[in-house]
Amino acid sequence: MSRAVREFDMFSPEAKILVAVSGGKDSLAVWDMLQRSGYQADGLYLGLGITDYSDTSAHFARTFATARDLKLIEVDLPTEYGYDIPTGARTAGRVPCSACGTSKRHLFDKAALDGSYDVLVTGHNLDDEAAVLFGNVLRWQTEYLARQMPVLSAWLGFPEKVKPLIRLSERDTAADCVISGIDYIIDECPMSSGNKHLRYKKALNSIELVSPGTKFDFYSGFLRKDSHLFRTAYFEHTENHATAERSRHAIPAEVSHAQPVRIATRAERSTSSLHAELEAGQ
Amino acid sequence: MSRAVREFDMFSPEAKILVAVSGGKDSLAVWDMLQRSGYQADGLYLGLGITDYSDTSAHFARTFATARDLKLIEVDLPTEYGYDIPTGARTAGRVPCSACGTSKRHLFDKAALDGSYDVLVTGHNLDDEAAVLFGNVLRWQTEYLARQMPVLSAWLGFPEKVKPLIRLSERDTAADCVISGIDYIIDECPMSSGNKHLRYKKALNSIELVSPGTKFDFYSGFLRKDSHLFRTAYFEHTENHATAERSRHAIPAEVSHAQPVRIATRAERSTSSLHAELEAGQ
Repeated sequence: MSRAVREFDMFSPEAKILVAVSGGKDSLAVWDMLQRSGYQADGLYLGLGITDYSDTSAHFARTFATARDLKLIEVDLPTEYGYDIPTGARTAGRVPCSACGTSKRHLFDKAALDGSYDVLVTGHNLDDEAAVLFGNVLRWQTEYLARQMPVLSAWLGFPEKVKPLIRLSERDTAADCVISGIDYIIDECPMSSGNKHLRYKKALNSIELVSPGTKFDFYSGFLRKDSHLFRTAYFEHTENHATAERSRHAIPAEVSHAQPVRIATRAERSTSSLHAELEAGQ
Repeated sequence: MSRAVREFDMFSPEAKILVAVSGGKDSLAVWDMLQRSGYQADGLYLGLGITDYSDTSAHFARTFATARDLKLIEVDLPTEYGYDIPTGARTAGRVPCSACGTSKRHLFDKAALDGSYDVLVTGHNLDDEAAVLFGNVLRWQTEYLARQMPVLSAWLGFPEKVKPLIRLSERDTAADCVISGIDYIIDECPMSSGNKHLRYKKALNSIELVSPGTKFDFYSGFLRKDSHLFRTAYFEHTENHATAERSRHAIPAEVSHAQPVRIATRAERSTSSLHAELEAGQ
């Protein structure tokens, strides 16, 4: 993890961190690593109202936090917002995973801003990111490809978001949990069965099995070699949102379109942020 | 087929066409379609010296040509060049499919130029192109992504090459053969077992099965939405080859980098060719 944190200049040693905690191996592993590395990191657990699955995952999140004397914030959708994911998705006529993703993003963002956290950390691992990338590429979704970065800078109404586990596979985080004695919910969410993300993971795994390293090369090659092409295309085609997006993606205006964009440092992200630009009257 | 020929302005009704014929369903189907559509198309069969497999595939190619009174040119590697694919690949220390691809490309190009053909047609179908695209994307091979087009214009030492079956799946061409009474070799080449191309096809098929249309969207979305990004990047990073490459890929110099490049018409390909530029003293 520390290599990714350093490589992408994710946060400072003094950062006030909020970890999005699901009770699964990835989020508990990243929380554990942060804690052991001396970071100040609180957890946020969302009760999604997915019956037994939510009860069990909450149990693992609470047990983990209590044993390590860590602060776990809990937000319960049914109690505080009057809906759960199964009925919410049905009412909105949306696929559960899609409705759930939107709800979670909104509530995580809100909690990070309300609690004045410097950064929101999620447990997305290499398998997750490679599968998302595969889905984005299958449909050539230029906008999503432009945004798929390990660091998304703070923007009006959005906290900074980072993914410190992008170098680790699912196996790595599972192994880390075993070694560190972390109990986590093993079952996949019952509502996710047959979803596209899992299918993309399976397709990539079938190739990884015969050509080990494929997933890492796919994701890291994207970041290193061609992701800037999609950012360039996206920015050029959305001129009116360009400043805001540049700021959000932490890409200084002086970065040439012709060359791969390196990840901006935290200092650059802060000086090039929309907030700073607004303050400077630009 | 006629839609792809029209859409990508592949060749004129009077073109002298050479079809790369393997004895499999795709090459015989495209030859059959061309012939039925009134084009003048000869076939070229390469004897690769892969024992029984080569004997059987040659039989199907010859039977097809004889029944339709079509001209089939035959080039036999062992007789004319003194090597076959199994021993040639072993000697060169290369994967058989890789050595075979290089040999075939060279001999097809040579035969098309020697015979003064206007265009070399191959039977690559949608499944082939989607699998190649998947492989190129998995490794983010910018150069290959820049070149993966349904039409590659003539260049010094290379004939124009087109793929009229890019809109058809393997199932479509197999069905066409059944309907048209074409007998073809059904077995895959015995040397290709376990090769990456087949693995990529399998992975994409696992997704296509649940989300029909994925392969078409993947390939056509690439051509339509993002392929120009890779061409732009490739050209900008190879300044010294830029003129030659632009010519080969039939992209007029005035085409803006900022917008998707449409496929150049035959007239544009001819006026923008390196040959024309050299003649004009550029």
